[in-house]
Formats: sequence, C-alpha cells, structure tokens
Amino acid sequence: MTGPADRTTRRAGPDKATASGTTSLVRMSASPEGGVTEAIVEANARYAAAFTDPGLTAGPARHVAVVTCMDARIDVPAALGLELGDHHTLRNAGGVVTDDVIRSLAISQRALGTRSVVVVHHTGCGMLTITEDFRHELQAESGQRPPWAVEAFGDPDDEVRQSMRRVRTSPFLPHTDDVRGFVFDVATGRLREITA
Amino acid sequence: MTGPADRTTRRAGPDKATASGTTSLVRMSASPEGGVTEAIVEANARYAAAFTDPGLTAGPARHVAVVTCMDARIDVPAALGLELGDHHTLRNAGGVVTDDVIRSLAISQRALGTRSVVVVHHTGCGMLTITEDFRHELQAESGQRPPWAVEAFGDPDDEVRQSMRRVRTSPFLPHTDDVRGFVFDVATGRLREITA
Repeated sequence: MTGPADRTTRRAGPDKATASGTTSLVRMSASPEGGVTEAIVEANARYAAAFTDPGLTAGPARHVAVVTCMDARIDVPAALGLELGDHHTLRNAGGVVTDDVIRSLAISQRALGTRSVVVVHHTGCGMLTITEDFRHELQAESGQRPPWAVEAFGDPDDEVRQSMRRVRTSPFLPHTDDVRGFVFDVATGRLREITA
Repeated sequence: MTGPADRTTRRAGPDKATASGTTSLVRMSASPEGGVTEAIVEANARYAAAFTDPGLTAGPARHVAVVTCMDARIDVPAALGLELGDHHTLRNAGGVVTDDVIRSLAISQRALGTRSVVVVHHTGCGMLTITEDFRHELQAESGQRPPWAVEAFGDPDDEVRQSMRRVRTSPFLPHTDDVRGFVFDVATGRLREITA
C-alpha cells in the first residue's frame, strides 16, 4: 500500500519528462481499486481541496484557440506556456481541422472572443499508422459504414498545411488572418513551424 | 521590460488558481511582440530546453480517453491527476460526443488501446448561452447553412447523459462498458458524477 505522500506527488511538464519530480501537486494512485476512473475521482478530490475560485470567465484571456491531437504526449499548457484561463483547447485524433473543429472555432470566435488559431500536429502520430482502410474494417465488424472520414494522413507537415487552409477558407469564421501551424516533436518537446 | 525570471515562471493547476505561484516552469511573456502565437513560440523554446525524451509510445499508459469541453478553465491533467503519457484528450465546444469524437474514440480504442471513457462537462459553459439560432446567424452572415449541428444544450447533467449514451450505443467502439460522466465545477475544481 502506498502512503499519502506517494499519492500526492505532482503533475507538470518538463519535470515529468525528466523524472526529476520536484514539483508536487496531484497524482493518482498507481493501482487504484475500481480502475482508472476511480483513481481520477480520488485525484480530483485532492485537486479540489487545494483549489480556490480563480474567478475566471468563459472568454479565454489570451484570445487564442489551440487545435491539436488527442495524443498522450502533448501537455498543451506546459509545452505552449499557457495558463488556466488563457486559451481554448480543441483536440481530436490527429489534430485535424474537421467540421467539429470548425463548429467549435465558430463558437470560440463568435461567442467567446478568440481571434488567433494555433494548429499543432506532432511526430510519431498514431494516425500515420492507419489508412482509410480503417473504414472498411469498421464496416466489416459493425455491419455499417461510418458516416465520417477517418482523416488518416501520411505527412504531418502537409496535414498541418491542410488544416490551416481549412481554417483560412471557412466561411463560418470571422477571424482567419492569424492562423499558424506547427509540428511538435514528442522526443524533444520542440515546436517546428510549418509555413504555407 | 520584464526580466528572464519573470518570463520563466511556471504553469500548474491549483497553484495557479490560488495565485501562490510556487512552482516554476514555463511562462509566456505577458505582452509579447507579435501577439500570442509569438509568445507561445518563445515559451516552447524554454520548455524544449528543459525537456528530455520521456521515451513514451503513442498508446496511453492508463488506457483512458477523456472527453471534455474546450473551456479555458479546465486543466485536464491537473484536475484529473493524469500525467504526460497517461491518457488521450478529446476536446471540443461543449465536450459533446459528436461524430468527430466517435471517430477519435474508434481510433483511440482500436489502434491505441484505450478501454475507458470519461466525459467531463462543466458549470458556466459558453454553450449554455447560445442556441440552435446560432445556425441561422451563421447562415445570414455567410450566405450558407453550416453542414453541422451547433450542439447547443441547456442542462449540463442531461448533456453528460446524452454524451454517455452516444458512446455506449456507438456500433464503432469495441469498449463501451466503462463510460462515466461528470460535471466539473469551475469555481470549486470539483467533479460531480452524473449517473444514468
């Protein structure tokens, strides 16, 4: 059994990566009864106990929306130097600008005041290992075609360019001038900018 | 002008909320030349300088996907006690389980080994302030109907239940047993579980 000290170790960006573990906030139990969700509930209780109302409103303070992949190796606030309240975060498989991202950006810009868009794809993306054949596998197993494209891609640089184009050409977004795209290297933590 | 010390202050969860600012990692400049994206680039350079390869693979260590809102006040890793490499993160306007979320979960479960789904909506959501009339505004301004639903909603509890149902009934997901839903209180930092 782990003691309370073990169960309240931290979370962070580079510290985690280097395993130096100097900061100390909230850490879930390694082997919780009830599985990962029970561990999340326990960890959140500790987070809430240390939390005081920051008094933030729904509109992001830095007026920026970040579009990136669901990938487990991207800690958006740490890697981009953003704080609680600063930014909207849109994440899906690939960080692809799909219709759902356009929907979200339309709400983000029109109702909540963001004006800048930052698209971040990354090295070693799981999307590089699958193809549109994935659709056929899903159809074969489920007996029905998915009503969506898989959005598989081969080259992250090209994919960032396509995602930026989808933002810039959307008729539903009022702010399409400040759109920049990057590839995040999961081994170095570094963003490399992709130009059109 | 701010000195280097001011520009390398941290990021974190509860510390930020209480403004005690004791941890110290990466902090963007408050008023960067070139706007927020230039500040992100600068902050990332500092992040990368302190980063060593954690050697993580694409499959999340805790086999969980978290679906939540793009809202600026939700720091997923901090609030849920998750670390770099632990989890997939899916975020859109509302944290609604749209087709794009099902697409992402299908890839997450089938190609990258996640088995649990955690849906987190929150208090004070911007989605509560808009309605499907938003579609008509978009149509009036752009001259074309959006090819997507706005997914506006009135009650976060009901919306969490609907999102859980969409996951549980999807024919494209192999793992629909371990799906739990919560409402995150942005003023207290606490998750409240929603039962079906």
